[in-house]
Amino acid sequence: MKILGIGGTLRKGSYSRALLLEAQKLAPEGIVIELTDIGDFPLYNPDIVLPDNVQKFKKDIEEADAVLFSTAEYNYSIPGSLKNAIDWASRPYGNNSWEEKPAAIMSESMGMLGGIKAQLHLRQIMLAINVYFLNRPEVIVPNVKEKFDDEGNLIDEHTKEKIKELLEALIKWVEKIK
Amino acid sequence: MKILGIGGTLRKGSYSRALLLEAQKLAPEGIVIELTDIGDFPLYNPDIVLPDNVQKFKKDIEEADAVLFSTAEYNYSIPGSLKNAIDWASRPYGNNSWEEKPAAIMSESMGMLGGIKAQLHLRQIMLAINVYFLNRPEVIVPNVKEKFDDEGNLIDEHTKEKIKELLEALIKWVEKIK
Amino acid sequence: MKILGIGGTLRKGSYSRALLLEAQKLAPEGIVIELTDIGDFPLYNPDIVLPDNVQKFKKDIEEADAVLFSTAEYNYSIPGSLKNAIDWASRPYGNNSWEEKPAAIMSESMGMLGGIKAQLHLRQIMLAINVYFLNRPEVIVPNVKEKFDDEGNLIDEHTKEKIKELLEALIKWVEKIK
Amino acid sequence: MKILGIGGTLRKGSYSRALLLEAQKLAPEGIVIELTDIGDFPLYNPDIVLPDNVQKFKKDIEEADAVLFSTAEYNYSIPGSLKNAIDWASRPYGNNSWEEKPAAIMSESMGMLGGIKAQLHLRQIMLAINVYFLNRPEVIVPNVKEKFDDEGNLIDEHTKEKIKELLEALIKWVEKIK
Repeated sequence: MKILGIGGTLRKGSYSRALLLEAQKLAPEGIVIELTDIGDFPLYNPDIVLPDNVQKFKKDIEEADAVLFSTAEYNYSIPGSLKNAIDWASRPYGNNSWEEKPAAIMSESMGMLGGIKAQLHLRQIMLAINVYFLNRPEVIVPNVKEKFDDEGNLIDEHTKEKIKELLEALIKWVEKIK
Repeated sequence: MKILGIGGTLRKGSYSRALLLEAQKLAPEGIVIELTDIGDFPLYNPDIVLPDNVQKFKKDIEEADAVLFSTAEYNYSIPGSLKNAIDWASRPYGNNSWEEKPAAIMSESMGMLGGIKAQLHLRQIMLAINVYFLNRPEVIVPNVKEKFDDEGNLIDEHTKEKIKELLEALIKWVEKIK
Repeated sequence: MKILGIGGTLRKGSYSRALLLEAQKLAPEGIVIELTDIGDFPLYNPDIVLPDNVQKFKKDIEEADAVLFSTAEYNYSIPGSLKNAIDWASRPYGNNSWEEKPAAIMSESMGMLGGIKAQLHLRQIMLAINVYFLNRPEVIVPNVKEKFDDEGNLIDEHTKEKIKELLEALIKWVEKIK
Repeated sequence: MKILGIGGTLRKGSYSRALLLEAQKLAPEGIVIELTDIGDFPLYNPDIVLPDNVQKFKKDIEEADAVLFSTAEYNYSIPGSLKNAIDWASRPYGNNSWEEKPAAIMSESMGMLGGIKAQLHLRQIMLAINVYFLNRPEVIVPNVKEKFDDEGNLIDEHTKEKIKELLEALIKWVEKIK
């Protein structure tokens, strides 16, 4: 089973990306999590031809059995960069790469609310593009800085447990949905 | 009084932009609506130095008496390009250009719901950056294509009336808030 | 297959209820839609013992194969009466009658937006109680008054089609999910 | 200045109510916070005549200079009982008691997110009824049980500080808005 991991933020040392790297390590046998990069997409504009990297992104989504989002919260929503990637892959009209794709989400923040508002916006967006979003468990990582050591390793056992639970639930969800 | 108009979509012939151009024409004496361009911003990344065009954007917001958003709805939310511009102007930390700025919103869509879901997401985002958002009137333009002629002129009287009402309410709001 | 129909508004002649009555007529062979009444529940209060009618409501939900909500929009959300019924059936803790129930939704309004904001709030609420909500089709009925004749019969063919599509999609969803 | 305090939950020992009682103690000189009771309202139904207690509630709102909501989160939204009270006071059509009322909000929960999802739903609802909602500070009280002693006194200094800040900001907001 192949899961496409999409990180919502672009900076080096992004915790969203770090959570995906951790998910790769925690994934059960037979589950491959491939990370993708959305940082070099142009701003979505229907006037310009689909760039090569966007075409590859669309193909990666279509070939994956499921998608795993990991996102920070910027201004009570998902980062513009993540929304931009979602917009690109939903187009052109009649060629929505997300259609009926099972998906799950993790979010993180430096503060105490762990990105929950970004999760809820993302869920509404996923409804538009007909993604089958897993309800539970909700992986919400507050105070994310304290959960990693200086080498970028996740050192919080509770968060590790939640990621494992999420992956197991996502695998069952994929089997149920298809 | 100077109002900064921010259009949410990038394509040539964008209806969001067309609504702003119409607002310019409909503005009462003494009110200037300046349009800004967010289409050439890089994707927000805290690792890169604030580009010149973003710095100009931040300055334009700070010098305006109010902001007027006009947006399409992409995937039940605002376009990634608009979210990207909002993210840029809210940073770096401690230097949020939106702080306490009065603002109003118009939305449009080809369909029957006129972009209302984008409006509601935008309102939640504005809360994060402490914008003082006008409640009413809500300018929601469904079936937007029919409202313009082939030269891009707004031909729908009801929409013109609503834009005028919005501008008048925004002007009063600016005076109340400051 | 048994579907429990829950109408969100209480007045005689409620259009939410009228849509459910229409769904009963349009249901394919072998599908029974039972209507339930939430109008005589007390306001939810954890201090009072579960009333008999609430206990019956919980049992009805648990025995149904799926739930079909039909709601008006009150003040940009679902009616308090519907939220009250949802709250009751989610309690006491550890005894959530909604758990893993497949569900779908129809909404209506007198205005042009058809209750979409109520739908989106309901979806977020359903996430809390782990309902498996159908993504599509979205049945949104604007200008609802014009869609019915004076005897309360639905006379709008497009709405009839959408209700039929919704029922068919819900039936498939139930089979997929269980 | 008179502020009407509205608590969202009905049980004895409600923490929402406890926060309002604390706000009464912390209010600056000259500010009176009156508590109201929404627990004995019938479920909103436009067919029934406005009950006496609802009429009094509407009058209390209209005569107050501002409203202070304090709410728990039930199922990722506000309690049905609070929505019911809001619905009543917004009717009959053309007689919305909330119109242009300044307001602020506190939320609490036993869990780690402090009722933020209820706050966001309430803000959307307030938009419908044209309430002028204070943006900041956001008073979000997670793990609320630990913040009170056995006699129901707030013992958390940070929460006390936030309530004081909220009251001061609300008072300034009232003066700005009127």
